[in-house]
Amino acid sequence: MTTRRPRERGVTVEDVARAAGVSRQTISNALNAPHRLKAETLERVSAVIEQLGYRPDQSARSLKSGTRRIIAYPTPVDDPANPNPLMGGFLEAVVAASGEAGYRILLVRPRPGQSQEQALDELIAARTVDGFLLSDVLRDDPRVAHLTAAGFPFAAFGRTAPGQPQSWADVDSAQAMIDLVGLIAARGHRRVAFLASTGGQPWMDDRRDGFLAGARRHHLTTQVYSVPGDDPAGIVAATRDLLSGRARPTAVVVSGDWLTLGVYTAARAEGLEIGEDLAVAAFDDLPITGFLQPALTTVRLPLRRIAEALINRLLRIIEDGVTPEAGLLLPGELVVRPSLGP
Amino acid sequence: MTTRRPRERGVTVEDVARAAGVSRQTISNALNAPHRLKAETLERVSAVIEQLGYRPDQSARSLKSGTRRIIAYPTPVDDPANPNPLMGGFLEAVVAASGEAGYRILLVRPRPGQSQEQALDELIAARTVDGFLLSDVLRDDPRVAHLTAAGFPFAAFGRTAPGQPQSWADVDSAQAMIDLVGLIAARGHRRVAFLASTGGQPWMDDRRDGFLAGARRHHLTTQVYSVPGDDPAGIVAATRDLLSGRARPTAVVVSGDWLTLGVYTAARAEGLEIGEDLAVAAFDDLPITGFLQPALTTVRLPLRRIAEALINRLLRIIEDGVTPEAGLLLPGELVVRPSLGP
Repeated sequence: MTTRRPRERGVTVEDVARAAGVSRQTISNALNAPHRLKAETLERVSAVIEQLGYRPDQSARSLKSGTRRIIAYPTPVDDPANPNPLMGGFLEAVVAASGEAGYRILLVRPRPGQSQEQALDELIAARTVDGFLLSDVLRDDPRVAHLTAAGFPFAAFGRTAPGQPQSWADVDSAQAMIDLVGLIAARGHRRVAFLASTGGQPWMDDRRDGFLAGARRHHLTTQVYSVPGDDPAGIVAATRDLLSGRARPTAVVVSGDWLTLGVYTAARAEGLEIGEDLAVAAFDDLPITGFLQPALTTVRLPLRRIAEALINRLLRIIEDGVTPEAGLLLPGELVVRPSLGP
Repeated sequence: MTTRRPRERGVTVEDVARAAGVSRQTISNALNAPHRLKAETLERVSAVIEQLGYRPDQSARSLKSGTRRIIAYPTPVDDPANPNPLMGGFLEAVVAASGEAGYRILLVRPRPGQSQEQALDELIAARTVDGFLLSDVLRDDPRVAHLTAAGFPFAAFGRTAPGQPQSWADVDSAQAMIDLVGLIAARGHRRVAFLASTGGQPWMDDRRDGFLAGARRHHLTTQVYSVPGDDPAGIVAATRDLLSGRARPTAVVVSGDWLTLGVYTAARAEGLEIGEDLAVAAFDDLPITGFLQPALTTVRLPLRRIAEALINRLLRIIEDGVTPEAGLLLPGELVVRPSLGP
């Protein structure tokens, strides 16, 4: 169980440094301490990393005996008939990244009647796992607080609070929204609406804040519509309300792809052609987006890079005892499709 | 780790037996040895089980000390940007069913350069897990042969060969196809085509065989079109070829939902209205099917029931040393939507 596979000759950090015209340390910073780099350097280096398919070499890490080589992943409850593709995609990326480093993923979920904290304690006490990978991290997430208090290794998809270990990685949703609104403004739109479900998750707030920051920058007139939950009828009604006003917006930014199904229905009901009379853009790049007519402009989450960064960070803690000093924000990718219009 | 949660008062086997007007043994047979029951009894009992939401009580099982309470699941490689929703849904159902019994799922995958057998042996030797859950089981699956030879507990989503342990559950794809063709025949269609990718997986062969059996029963004229892989352009070309002939079929049965995307495109290109000029039906009930226009008639896989049956069977082997005498076929559910026409 402690034998590492022999290192395969692939893309090395030297290859990436040479191609990007920077030092090895800069590549390392881009992966582990991106705040130390200038934005333009980070962008150039990230593009080269992506282009060459470089993955940090886990085999350089010291082996620490006594590890189980098992990472616990508290898996969110889902609907078997319609599983969340973002969580499925993230899990696949996590299995691939941890497998490369010789670790396996144990799916864990509190038993009925058990709290999140009790479920974590049971695994820690039984020494079943070396660390935890958390996703769907909320503000004041009790799992983060509990693992911080227990001093047990973890890494989080989503931000931890100041004062907690900064062993997290996340999508820079706000920046992606700023870029999206910039594109919409450049196409001549002046009245732009933001449509969101009122879930209150931190990533949804980031998307809204990014929208508002982008709109301010370009002096756009905005409306923000919030609908409770993700009930399709509610979305359709809110969008029809939004589109039937006298000064209707010419572009609608939706907080997540799933809600656009209601927006498409509402636009049709109001006799508006999406991509011609109304520009629509959203967030997540779910597989359904390719089936919408017209295809949807959206933001793709860098799930592989997030998974790799999280496993990388978690193993630094488990194997080397080193906790990252800062979280890691990774850029979303704007995918422009016909729903945005000409 | 060995504390079981207290049994919750839920639907009992007695409740189900009373509602269905049969004995407890009949309920047990319906779940574990359905071949012992008449088709009509099985159907009635299955409907009541579904309706009452009955789940077999795992807590009645004897506890065997020394178990890890971890089940290994060799997870298929997937695409993070477009994960297979059937595998995601199955995994969710497996996590739920194993969690109810106090077991967790360890995701395993051979390391690069490692064979499937070596990956299994490593886990067995290290006593990491109590048993294996296999999915995507192929004919002559080397994992099944290896676990059979090793005498190690496993259960398989997909059929094992005669002479191997019959610790499997599967969808009765052939019967679902026979039912689907019966419905198409009842709506007056006489020329029906079957469109499939030539993957050669056993479940795809079952679907084709069921189609042909149904067509024979109703004396339908059939064509079977096979296209290599699931390349959209290939599907579109094959379907256009199929629809441009002089005696074109009035109904097309597609081996899987994913391929219907090409069928919809081809029908439009040929000026045919799906649901009016051409009936289309497929298999899997993927989440995308709801977004097709018109919505697609398809067959839903009973993923929760399969996961529960497999965990049930695997734990009987692990905890009681009892291997099932026969595999378990569970019915698919026909979901009729407008693509089938009037």
